[in-house]
Amino acid sequence: MNFPMIRYVTSWILRIEGLLLCSSVIIALIYHEYAVMPAYFIVIAGCEGVGFLLSKKPEDSRIYQKGGYISVALAWIVMSAVGALPFVLTGEIPHYINAVFEIVSGFTTTGSSILKDVEAVSHASLFWRSFSHWIGGMGVLVFILMFIPVKGGSQMNLMRAESPGPDVSKFVPRVHNTASILYKIYIGMTLGMIACLLVAGMPWFDTLCITFGSAGTGGFGVLNSSCASYTAVQQWIITIGMMAFGVNFSFYFLLLYKRPKEAFKMEEVRAYILIILASVAMITAQIMIKRPHYTHFEHALRAAAFQVSSIITTTGFSTTNFDLWPSFSKWILVLLMICGACAGSTGGGMKVSRILVLLKTLKKELFQIVHPRSVRKVMLDGETVEHSVLRSINVFTAVYFLIFGLSVLIISLDGFSMETNFTAVAATLNNIGPGLAGVGPASNFSAYSGFSKLVLIFDMLAGRLEIFPMLLLFVPSVWHRS
Amino acid sequence: MNFPMIRYVTSWILRIEGLLLCSSVIIALIYHEYAVMPAYFIVIAGCEGVGFLLSKKPEDSRIYQKGGYISVALAWIVMSAVGALPFVLTGEIPHYINAVFEIVSGFTTTGSSILKDVEAVSHASLFWRSFSHWIGGMGVLVFILMFIPVKGGSQMNLMRAESPGPDVSKFVPRVHNTASILYKIYIGMTLGMIACLLVAGMPWFDTLCITFGSAGTGGFGVLNSSCASYTAVQQWIITIGMMAFGVNFSFYFLLLYKRPKEAFKMEEVRAYILIILASVAMITAQIMIKRPHYTHFEHALRAAAFQVSSIITTTGFSTTNFDLWPSFSKWILVLLMICGACAGSTGGGMKVSRILVLLKTLKKELFQIVHPRSVRKVMLDGETVEHSVLRSINVFTAVYFLIFGLSVLIISLDGFSMETNFTAVAATLNNIGPGLAGVGPASNFSAYSGFSKLVLIFDMLAGRLEIFPMLLLFVPSVWHRS
Repeated sequence: MNFPMIRYVTSWILRIEGLLLCSSVIIALIYHEYAVMPAYFIVIAGCEGVGFLLSKKPEDSRIYQKGGYISVALAWIVMSAVGALPFVLTGEIPHYINAVFEIVSGFTTTGSSILKDVEAVSHASLFWRSFSHWIGGMGVLVFILMFIPVKGGSQMNLMRAESPGPDVSKFVPRVHNTASILYKIYIGMTLGMIACLLVAGMPWFDTLCITFGSAGTGGFGVLNSSCASYTAVQQWIITIGMMAFGVNFSFYFLLLYKRPKEAFKMEEVRAYILIILASVAMITAQIMIKRPHYTHFEHALRAAAFQVSSIITTTGFSTTNFDLWPSFSKWILVLLMICGACAGSTGGGMKVSRILVLLKTLKKELFQIVHPRSVRKVMLDGETVEHSVLRSINVFTAVYFLIFGLSVLIISLDGFSMETNFTAVAATLNNIGPGLAGVGPASNFSAYSGFSKLVLIFDMLAGRLEIFPMLLLFVPSVWHRS
Repeated sequence: MNFPMIRYVTSWILRIEGLLLCSSVIIALIYHEYAVMPAYFIVIAGCEGVGFLLSKKPEDSRIYQKGGYISVALAWIVMSAVGALPFVLTGEIPHYINAVFEIVSGFTTTGSSILKDVEAVSHASLFWRSFSHWIGGMGVLVFILMFIPVKGGSQMNLMRAESPGPDVSKFVPRVHNTASILYKIYIGMTLGMIACLLVAGMPWFDTLCITFGSAGTGGFGVLNSSCASYTAVQQWIITIGMMAFGVNFSFYFLLLYKRPKEAFKMEEVRAYILIILASVAMITAQIMIKRPHYTHFEHALRAAAFQVSSIITTTGFSTTNFDLWPSFSKWILVLLMICGACAGSTGGGMKVSRILVLLKTLKKELFQIVHPRSVRKVMLDGETVEHSVLRSINVFTAVYFLIFGLSVLIISLDGFSMETNFTAVAATLNNIGPGLAGVGPASNFSAYSGFSKLVLIFDMLAGRLEIFPMLLLFVPSVWHRS
């Protein structure tokens, strides 16, 4: 393990985080929230100071696969440990573990909250909370990669460990370029959504925060009612915005480079759209029939589309308390939670492409039983899926359900209902935000014990980093010098 | 597809089922239940008649892998369709679909019931219900294999498709011999348990039915209180009996052939025992603390051991309403439901060996990230697990969770709570019996709609036949003549 290099990456994390925190100071200035400013100044000074002290460039700047995973896991932990401090220092979230829960929920774009009254929090802190979604959505290390001088292969190892989904980086040979193209798309789409919401008449502070929440597929709102009080047009803009950020960014890359045919042939994107349409149709039908207060078709359709889009992209905004929906509609949402958005998007969950490959593997196995002598390969987008990819998807699936089961076991010691515990884990491991019942859209995670919160914090990080970086932290031999 | 051979196997199924039904006539005679006898006579006559008509031996008696799967799936469907008739004809379960649910639950050794008052049913029908567990536990086709003259490889294909768990048949070269050794162990253990229960003072009818239920890991009781009203000693005997039938039969085979060292080295059996001990310890501790009516340690220990043993072996007897246990204990039971017993036992679920292999694969993957240049293989009992076995386990796991999710989706249309639906599927797909909440040990499955019952019937069969035979029924090209 290249420890000096891990130190070096950490110093960059701290310095960039200090810089990003300055945005909250600006918000505090605008809203005359002078009481919270010292807290932010202290943390910023600390970040820059410690970051400067650690910033000696190591001689050996290589990072291998293992080191990449560990750097990423540690970077996210450091970022969260520091990012939680303003909440504690301002006194808005006095308990440190709650503050860590909140900011991990932010960076991992989960959007689960322990705050009972969001509207009581200062604008500066609300902004920092929402901004953390935007930062976390794309990944901090990918961002840093554009500045820090590490060897080519090392960048790849970092990027691979941090990116949500298996295949972000196949467009262009140089990682620098890939990262900057991705960031350009991300920033462009963010600006587009901000423009639309401002035109639709949303206040600028809400616009920024809601856009950050949608872009990172996070889900922190600025109102206690989440998105219920926005106008119909604003809700539709958010719905479409969330969906768009759940699409594999390769799709936009192909569009950008004028290859629309290839873009629209992407099987994952097609499956993603199909799943959304089917879910919206089924839920709209059921809530029209079973929930008499959805009198207009548009009302039911908008509620269904908003919630489906919010859950499948793992954003977690809500316009209605879907915990009151009938069980069929609720279970669709649970399945969407587990499915998640496209690989290579900012969304979480298992990812549509993994589900697709699993289904195709199954089809192949069945075909092989019927035609034992045939040889068939699993194909995606016209290309054979490599054996190693198949294996890693299988292992991922197994580990995913293992962590799922164990997490529910541990947090159920707190004595809440099975539905609460099950969906609390589903919502954090898939980086969604709200679950059902005790952690539904009308409730929050504050009732869980500190230990359970630690488990859920682990789940959020494991979900965001696709499990392996977090698991490796617990493998003793990783920590040997070699 | 060798259709004449499928017809021939079916004829044997019918004739044997007719024979087995005669046992109920004897019970009816003993208890002077003359009213139900005509129903049984009609079904027996029908079985023998139709069986005789179909019994022309085909020229080509070969069964390939595909044919093996399909024969097994069809055999189980025919067996259930016919086995349900006595319940309808006696009027004890007037709706055919309910009767099918009940007997499928019997043959698949699930033990889920739609009966609200078990004690109102005639002894003859109760006996048939429990006897179906004993028949289904070992597999009907394995039994028939000892009599019908099919070519060697064909027997293997049938046996492989029907046996619960991947590796029943590696002891002895000839399938005939393997089947008869397995049956001898099965019958020996059944007789042993009957003897113990009789000595402990249980009435002979209860003894027979409870033993059948334990041997097949089924779980139909003869009292509305399941096993709550039996004495402590009787409950301990049942606890140990259930555990014993959940052990891989290879273990007993090795003991029988005086290779105890190998037997006690079997990793699956060790893991199985470890899981049981850990679960019993955790539940005993929690219910002693949280449920004040467990005043004695023995009382809590017995309740925990009985329920753990009943759930992990997928039997489903109960001595207490464990739906009232705290959530941590309940979630342990849910995890045990999914885990299941050993491969090569009569128990259901995913099987301990599959979980073991999944864990080992995960460990290997993590090791490979840390030491990229190493080559490691997954080992079980000192032997390398073949790549094809690993793949099939992975595919099984994926399909398992897929069917799980879809089944919950469909039955949730009936509008019951998520806990009810989730555990209803867990209980049927793993062939356990009771779930929690609306399908808990104090309730039953009768409230579900006919369509949902069909889904759960499919789940029970898929669980018993390890999914693939049932899935193949829906692959159109299977039905082409070739």
